[in-house]
Amino acid sequence: MASAPAAPDAADSPEGAAQPGAGSRPPARLVVLVSGSGSNLQALLDAAADPGSGFGAEVVAVGADRGGIEGLRRAERAGVPTFVHRLRDYPSRPDWDRALTGSVAAHRPDLVVSAGFMKIVGASFMAAFAGRFINTHPALLPSFPGAHGVRDALAHGVKVTGCTVHFAEAEVDSGPIIAQRAVEVRDDDDEDTLHRRIKEVERGLLVDAVGRLARDGYRVEGRKVYIP
Amino acid sequence: MASAPAAPDAADSPEGAAQPGAGSRPPARLVVLVSGSGSNLQALLDAAADPGSGFGAEVVAVGADRGGIEGLRRAERAGVPTFVHRLRDYPSRPDWDRALTGSVAAHRPDLVVSAGFMKIVGASFMAAFAGRFINTHPALLPSFPGAHGVRDALAHGVKVTGCTVHFAEAEVDSGPIIAQRAVEVRDDDDEDTLHRRIKEVERGLLVDAVGRLARDGYRVEGRKVYIP
Repeated sequence: MASAPAAPDAADSPEGAAQPGAGSRPPARLVVLVSGSGSNLQALLDAAADPGSGFGAEVVAVGADRGGIEGLRRAERAGVPTFVHRLRDYPSRPDWDRALTGSVAAHRPDLVVSAGFMKIVGASFMAAFAGRFINTHPALLPSFPGAHGVRDALAHGVKVTGCTVHFAEAEVDSGPIIAQRAVEVRDDDDEDTLHRRIKEVERGLLVDAVGRLARDGYRVEGRKVYIP
Repeated sequence: MASAPAAPDAADSPEGAAQPGAGSRPPARLVVLVSGSGSNLQALLDAAADPGSGFGAEVVAVGADRGGIEGLRRAERAGVPTFVHRLRDYPSRPDWDRALTGSVAAHRPDLVVSAGFMKIVGASFMAAFAGRFINTHPALLPSFPGAHGVRDALAHGVKVTGCTVHFAEAEVDSGPIIAQRAVEVRDDDDEDTLHRRIKEVERGLLVDAVGRLARDGYRVEGRKVYIP
């Protein structure tokens, strides 16, 4: 299995970096899914808006599973189109999943990023975006998968935890790992203080990982993700 | 459950650090178990021998499950008594375990450290040294327990792994965690290169952890280890 959102790198061609047009590759197209405040979305919007960052990607749409959330307002303030698909508005979960898949696909994304999207997507979605649907998790997977990664790490008494950016697969929190960063646990941490520090690190890690995937392309071999 | 190898800290008494005799606490007694080259043992011997390190512990004996290994020679060069109990010299594994337990107990250890000891100890040993038998593991537990922590981490494609210093319990690689440190995985790592970097970090982490336990005491609450 291999996939790369970006055009082949100029350095791979005989002309190398001097090839005309090497600097004109269009930015990778990101669709970002949110369910809440969207702080990770904001970090991606900020990176894309900073002309000096060389981020290599732009947020072309933001989707949500509920209305009235700050994540949607962030998109609107940035002039990014939004769509909302509420599970309760569909006769069944597969119907909802197909609607979500259609809206995301319509924006022709190179990468789809879950930025705190609280719904587990279904078979249609995974079939359409396998290998380019990016999730984050507030622990160093494979430790502490599931809905309570921070609480479970604290309960286990680990001294180091962290965060993971990975490609989603059908089984939750199991896909190939793109990037990880460690966060130390302090004796006086509770779930809130630790989660706050992890989220801070996670924002930077996500922006860094998405930018590298977008600029440099990547390949996935078995469970391993290589970014040139 | 609580345990502490060192006398109560002088700072806990009304007289505080100025209390006469606060500096005269005897060093914690370590018995170290080895099966091979004993590089972790050497790090402990070096720390104990360095008068400026304020390590707070001394190696009072080194035990092994086989003869003729560098770990035993390191002990002999440092003038530390040694003992060897080979499994095959005993009618049964429990007999071997009782002999090992007896030899370790005879040196009245405050802490027992497995420095690459390759045998799983038995019920007698765990009963005698529960809560003060220290193991290391070349991964960030609870990820990748078992005999192949480095290989399994590579196969899983993690970007961050590390090492763990923990109290041993009957179930292997499961006890309360004393200290952990992260190690980044590189794209070109194989098991050897990654294990070498982890071992380097592990040596420093083990010496640091043993010294803190020895100097400051500790308490274990459920799965959590607190060092004041």
